Amino acid sequence: MPRTHASLQRLHVEPDLSAGAMLTLGKDQSLYLAAVLRKTVGDEVVLFNGRDGAWLARLTGDSKRAVTLETVERIAPQTPPSDLWYGFAPLKTERLDYVVQKATEMGAGVIQPVLTRYTQVSRLKHDKLVANVIEAAEQCEVLTVPEVRPETTLERLIADWPAREGDRRLVFADEGEASASPLEAIRALAGEPVGLLVGPEGGFSDEERTLLHAQPFVVPVSLGPRILRADTAAVAALAVIQAIIGDWR
Amino acid sequence: MPRTHASLQRLHVEPDLSAGAMLTLGKDQSLYLAAVLRKTVGDEVVLFNGRDGAWLARLTGDSKRAVTLETVERIAPQTPPSDLWYGFAPLKTERLDYVVQKATEMGAGVIQPVLTRYTQVSRLKHDKLVANVIEAAEQCEVLTVPEVRPETTLERLIADWPAREGDRRLVFADEGEASASPLEAIRALAGEPVGLLVGPEGGFSDEERTLLHAQPFVVPVSLGPRILRADTAAVAALAVIQAIIGDWR
Repeated sequence: MPRTHASLQRLHVEPDLSAGAMLTLGKDQSLYLAAVLRKTVGDEVVLFNGRDGAWLARLTGDSKRAVTLETVERIAPQTPPSDLWYGFAPLKTERLDYVVQKATEMGAGVIQPVLTRYTQVSRLKHDKLVANVIEAAEQCEVLTVPEVRPETTLERLIADWPAREGDRRLVFADEGEASASPLEAIRALAGEPVGLLVGPEGGFSDEERTLLHAQPFVVPVSLGPRILRADTAAVAALAVIQAIIGDWR
Repeated sequence: MPRTHASLQRLHVEPDLSAGAMLTLGKDQSLYLAAVLRKTVGDEVVLFNGRDGAWLARLTGDSKRAVTLETVERIAPQTPPSDLWYGFAPLKTERLDYVVQKATEMGAGVIQPVLTRYTQVSRLKHDKLVANVIEAAEQCEVLTVPEVRPETTLERLIADWPAREGDRRLVFADEGEASASPLEAIRALAGEPVGLLVGPEGGFSDEERTLLHAQPFVVPVSLGPRILRADTAAVAALAVIQAIIGDWR
């Protein structure tokens, strides 16, 4: 992404983007651009839809109800969607937003809330999670928007995993002792589809750990000798995966 | 650390800790224990001073001005201080607190604020940073408290580095292209003392990048294809170092 466009506002939109495309934004985005950011006719923004790359676009109308835009040129090619599956136990609301933003920033392709024994939140607002993910993608110049799946329980996730995820391995951040050093365990997965599961702040219950350790597709790893908060663990574990077998190479 | 003590309040104190030691806390900690947490005579807490491990202690007096304690038994041995040097460009105040907490959680031994061209904050409150580090150590069951050094400039840091840090290598998270994949670059440093430098949100200036790239002790690495916020970059880079050559193994 050329840094000359780094300061332009980025917006995720639904319609197809191509040369000379004309778009009309909905109420929320129009209000944001025209009233909050005070963009006027001729101002430029960057648009993306997760399919067609990043496009420079110019305002042709600046009504607070219905901003209109015309594309100028494509400024970055579409990046392939990420294959990295990320499951987490939901936290209290504000840290939930944060974890979802960080997962997007770190390149997760699927974000899966998983309810566990010690999960703190049992009813999630799916629309809000999706809005957070879109906003994170806009702010961090990520051109694909991760898919946020509806919440599931750990038991259902494990039971459905082989049918749903095929040969995807599930790296699980295990607070227990005697887990493998992540470097060797993760390097062994190079070239395979991978998921990462980070438990809740209370950790997994003994029964849950037993269930996880019993699955042939599960790879337990330790995240070090210190206790990590769930939001730290999310970034740390995703970073280690991306650095060792992911798109940091 | 036995999990049975996991729910006890942890306090960093200055005096030596040994069997049967008697302590009197200062005003702030006494108020916190007696008035905020409503601890009373007989209640237990965990004390640490960064030298003598973790000690179970029992309140012998619960005055809000001067709580008194007696040690019961040592419940964890002292961990060695971390040799991991962590330098960062200060952010706006609340994210500064956050970065310092995360560095403590991730096992940094030295925390060094570095002023750069695009640094957002130029006058730091050293006492406040130290208080944040102590609080993070208390909350994350870290038994050594990282040293927070007075702020310095990037130029002074680089000029003083060989004399001050000897053969310590400085891994620098470089937003530019063509940086090495971190896995190989960091693995090559196994067994050596290492530092990590994370730049400000605006990145390093061209002159600063040139200066860094010119130093024989500097190891530039990429933190992947996405833009990371400075607090994300801090955790991500520290995690990758700890996992590959640090204490996650």
